[in-house]
Amino acid sequence: MTDLDRLCIDAVRVLSMDAVEKANSGHPGTPMALAPVAYAIWTRHLKHDPAEPGWIDRDRFVLSVGHASMLLYSVLHLSGYDLSIDEIRDFRQWGSKTPGHPEVGHTAGVETTTGPLGQGVATSVGMALAERWLGARFNRPGHEVVDHRTTVLCSDGDLMEGISHEAAAFAGHQKLGKLTWIWDDNRITIEGSTDLAMSTDQAKRFEGYGWHVVRVDGGEDLSAIDAALDAAAAETERPTFVVLRTTIAPGAPTKEGTAGAHGAPLGDAEIAGAKAAYGYPSDEPFHVPPEVYAEWAKVASTGAAAHAAWRERFDAYHEAFPELASEYRRMMSGALPDGWADDIPILDAADATRASSGKVLNAIAPRVPELIGGSADLGGSNKTDISGGGNLLPDRPDGRVIHFGVREHAMAAIMNGLSLHGGIRPFGGTFLIFSDYMRPAIRLAALMGLNATWVFTHDSIGLGEDGPTHQPVEQLMTLRAIPNVMDLRPGDPSETAVAWQVALEREGGPAFLSLTRQKIPAIDRAELAAADGLRRGAYVLAEATGDVAEVVILASGSELHLAVEARHALEADGVPTRVVSFPSWHLFRQQDEAYRASVLGEGQVVRVSVEAGATFGWERWTGTAGGAIGIDRFGASAPAEVLFERFGFTADAVVARVRELLND
Amino acid sequence: MTDLDRLCIDAVRVLSMDAVEKANSGHPGTPMALAPVAYAIWTRHLKHDPAEPGWIDRDRFVLSVGHASMLLYSVLHLSGYDLSIDEIRDFRQWGSKTPGHPEVGHTAGVETTTGPLGQGVATSVGMALAERWLGARFNRPGHEVVDHRTTVLCSDGDLMEGISHEAAAFAGHQKLGKLTWIWDDNRITIEGSTDLAMSTDQAKRFEGYGWHVVRVDGGEDLSAIDAALDAAAAETERPTFVVLRTTIAPGAPTKEGTAGAHGAPLGDAEIAGAKAAYGYPSDEPFHVPPEVYAEWAKVASTGAAAHAAWRERFDAYHEAFPELASEYRRMMSGALPDGWADDIPILDAADATRASSGKVLNAIAPRVPELIGGSADLGGSNKTDISGGGNLLPDRPDGRVIHFGVREHAMAAIMNGLSLHGGIRPFGGTFLIFSDYMRPAIRLAALMGLNATWVFTHDSIGLGEDGPTHQPVEQLMTLRAIPNVMDLRPGDPSETAVAWQVALEREGGPAFLSLTRQKIPAIDRAELAAADGLRRGAYVLAEATGDVAEVVILASGSELHLAVEARHALEADGVPTRVVSFPSWHLFRQQDEAYRASVLGEGQVVRVSVEAGATFGWERWTGTAGGAIGIDRFGASAPAEVLFERFGFTADAVVARVRELLND
Repeated sequence: MTDLDRLCIDAVRVLSMDAVEKANSGHPGTPMALAPVAYAIWTRHLKHDPAEPGWIDRDRFVLSVGHASMLLYSVLHLSGYDLSIDEIRDFRQWGSKTPGHPEVGHTAGVETTTGPLGQGVATSVGMALAERWLGARFNRPGHEVVDHRTTVLCSDGDLMEGISHEAAAFAGHQKLGKLTWIWDDNRITIEGSTDLAMSTDQAKRFEGYGWHVVRVDGGEDLSAIDAALDAAAAETERPTFVVLRTTIAPGAPTKEGTAGAHGAPLGDAEIAGAKAAYGYPSDEPFHVPPEVYAEWAKVASTGAAAHAAWRERFDAYHEAFPELASEYRRMMSGALPDGWADDIPILDAADATRASSGKVLNAIAPRVPELIGGSADLGGSNKTDISGGGNLLPDRPDGRVIHFGVREHAMAAIMNGLSLHGGIRPFGGTFLIFSDYMRPAIRLAALMGLNATWVFTHDSIGLGEDGPTHQPVEQLMTLRAIPNVMDLRPGDPSETAVAWQVALEREGGPAFLSLTRQKIPAIDRAELAAADGLRRGAYVLAEATGDVAEVVILASGSELHLAVEARHALEADGVPTRVVSFPSWHLFRQQDEAYRASVLGEGQVVRVSVEAGATFGWERWTGTAGGAIGIDRFGASAPAEVLFERFGFTADAVVARVRELLND
Repeated sequence: MTDLDRLCIDAVRVLSMDAVEKANSGHPGTPMALAPVAYAIWTRHLKHDPAEPGWIDRDRFVLSVGHASMLLYSVLHLSGYDLSIDEIRDFRQWGSKTPGHPEVGHTAGVETTTGPLGQGVATSVGMALAERWLGARFNRPGHEVVDHRTTVLCSDGDLMEGISHEAAAFAGHQKLGKLTWIWDDNRITIEGSTDLAMSTDQAKRFEGYGWHVVRVDGGEDLSAIDAALDAAAAETERPTFVVLRTTIAPGAPTKEGTAGAHGAPLGDAEIAGAKAAYGYPSDEPFHVPPEVYAEWAKVASTGAAAHAAWRERFDAYHEAFPELASEYRRMMSGALPDGWADDIPILDAADATRASSGKVLNAIAPRVPELIGGSADLGGSNKTDISGGGNLLPDRPDGRVIHFGVREHAMAAIMNGLSLHGGIRPFGGTFLIFSDYMRPAIRLAALMGLNATWVFTHDSIGLGEDGPTHQPVEQLMTLRAIPNVMDLRPGDPSETAVAWQVALEREGGPAFLSLTRQKIPAIDRAELAAADGLRRGAYVLAEATGDVAEVVILASGSELHLAVEARHALEADGVPTRVVSFPSWHLFRQQDEAYRASVLGEGQVVRVSVEAGATFGWERWTGTAGGAIGIDRFGASAPAEVLFERFGFTADAVVARVRELLND
């Protein structure tokens, strides 16, 4: 290591310490410890162009240890990304580009939002999978236009989280040779020494997953770090796990190597002591010597050159394979191809909506090659298999059917990675109940505004005999409660077709389909309103006789046909009754007040919701004077038809409830 | 293996096949494959008394592969538990004792509810930890009254789930020598061969966790199974992982070894073929030869003898250590000791409610020794450390502070195991946002009706600079939506003290505390209502002048004091305003209609809720004409006081919103 290398590294440490100190909150110790490896990655191994962070063939870097955000902000600043020293000074302040944890879309050069532990490592697997899939699809001999690596810095916490297991086992099985996780082995967690909670031999664990394991004994040893990263690059058949032994907060006089340096400002004395230990040329906060800026500036010039070279290669590729090149550009842009929905069939027969979903998916798939996905080991049940799509595996890297294994949480995070990488429209299925396993990654998809479609089948007690452990009750409602998640619970086969279109057309956030296991009737669309009404979230499916409803029944999914049957009975008895199909709260909330009122009815109307899930929240639409037919307890094991009867989901029960409310 | 052994095993297979066939749903192949190991465990290794399933020193058996429920029901029936052949015939039917997945409390002999994969293995770790803790606390030389093992059957799916990693790493670190997981290595998952998704070297993985690994090459080899279980018992320093190589659905003519035998009835031809292959003496469904019943009956007599012997040992213990014996009995009964709450201090100063919680916990802990727990590596932040309790680790097996590691999901499942075992009142802390990682295990705690207290701190944007990845928005509401979960969001230090009491007094279900990071004022209880009102979920904290409210403000947690301030301003302006403290929806829902109306107010009253979380659901209490001040977007990174201002949580903003509603 040269003196200049050292100074460049120490500048990262200084910025990190000073920013945490000024913010009076944050995590100084880990950025200090990881400054050398970050320097090595950024200046010698990462292929990127600070002037154009969106270069599609750039290497991806993931800071899974998101609380060490100042490490990333420091190197982004120093290497010339659009992140000024004033933003560094504004660390963790309202409106700054330097929030407490890195946020993609908020700060140039940040590839994914991290902080919740384990999410970054798992997301990186999706990025690496996307790169391999696109490479297999688009590269041609002599034209390797897709060729980049994914590199991750992670912590003890990342590796303790369960999702790290799911993701690492999947990556090992998939032999993702361009993926590297570097573990900050610092033997410190928030509560103290890792001896309190951790004694896993991580190297052995990762060997068990089929990974290539490399050890670096000292976090300050630049040449050993370089050698490890070179070894990772040379290994093409396995992902690489680098064990990087570090000491937290190196140089801090009393806090080095202690938990005290983890999550709180170091204090003036420690900072002064550290700067002295480094022989740093100034005590001034946020000071960066000019020679440091000059040296780091080489990153930008090297990156610009690499980018220019790639552009030339891509031009040659475009010349040789114009259709492939424009298809690749289209996919990376996120635009759907013309006519993508043209083959969606008319679905007018009774069916399970999961079955309708499978048909729609398979009608879209041939026209949208970037639509890839699968299930967490329930493909046959979720109907998520793309027929003839091929299993995405090392010997079929451009396969379109992903076998995620019984790994719901990693599935969601890998989908996030596929989406973040670009070029892919991922979908993933499981039973609705197991969305509980996915929630941290679902929330991040919503926060990041990613495109992702979750196919949640077996969406109520209609699942039947598997019983209460498998029957969702509150899941539908609790997913609706997450900001920016689009809910879609189609009420018959034809709404299912529209739901898939809405999900894929959506920009700026994910969507899920809530689908039945059991067969349900097709609504008579010739007689009643068209399924396209789903696009507005809720719509009048059947107007009351005389157009003035006394009763409005709001229903979704498998309960929609019950509402239609109940309406017949009520109308026959002279009660003008409207049925509203209510497949999406997200979409309905986006409508204007006038439309909403026209659907819900005004004045003394009695509203009843019918949905085989928690009633929690339905008052928003029914009002407190209305009624909600739902399930506010756990389910039971029995055949589905018995359960619907026992739990009060029959047309008769709906009629009875309406009569009660009318008499109140 | 004798012919009689074989016949006893085949009877399990026959019952399993026939029950699935009659139910026309379920999982036949795995019970058939695991019949030999279950026979070995049940007849030769498990210490249990079918006549008294609640014997406190019994070995615990966990069927983590819960979909193989017919395996468990078959052996429970055959060994004389209260489970008749008619119940077996009623497999998966409404009201039967044989639901699709095993449910604790529903069927005698079932130790935990399983089905969601990974939960059983993780829960077993809590059971084994409870046994060791109680043994360390109560056993005396020559008086080993606590001495039992925990044995688990698990599947590929269990081991793919992330929670298996968290739990196994924790168990290895804790050196739980009386814990055995037996892995059904059948190389089949629902989607087909495990080659599609899995290539982990599980033995190496578990060696990495510090487990003792034993291999059994054939699932039919009773003597090898016996040897493995003997080796597990002989190993006292490490948990044991048994790799049991099996073939799914042995004997089925065409489905043996295929995914087709996993999750659907075999069909008549396969069943007839399998019975023929076994040389089973009858084709009659549910036939059990008398000699099989006779042989299995030995389980009951052996078990009764073991139980009797233990009773004698316990009597001797009781004689020698009467106080210990009755303390042990009390703890196992779940009763709280007299005077347990006597030392809870009066908390009348401003404080963060997490800090108040820590004080209350430490006031209760000396009087309730079975109260043990900790945090998922955030102990200092969650204030969950029992001062002087000692770290629960292999060298301090009766320690009271559990360092769960960054393993929120396993923490919740381990708590479930501690609670199921009996004798322990577990608590566990993390940030409220990370309750998302715990949801599958939280739901099971609620479904099983377990005692468990979750301490969720940093419960809003009040967390501050860590930003949107760490700021809960929808978590509070979505936890409230789970049936049988008690929510407790105390509004000041004194309510926090009552909340802890309510949580610990609760029977039949878990509770969580939602607590602030930031300091909040103490409500003036001399002036306003006593904090004891929390026991009813919501209560009138401050009545409107003249006792007729025009405005009712409903508030919880850190927003309660804002409501009080807003009331001052409104009353000063002549608007009679009531403030309702609303810490628990669960408790309020349990009140009668008259009480609820007396709190919420009737007629033309304007109601406004104030809570720094999702407004989703508040209409239940405010009505749709009311208003909800909350947060329906993701948070941001900035100091807490800036965020409260920016997000509209100030007394002025509350007043302004009330005025808007009054003018509507």
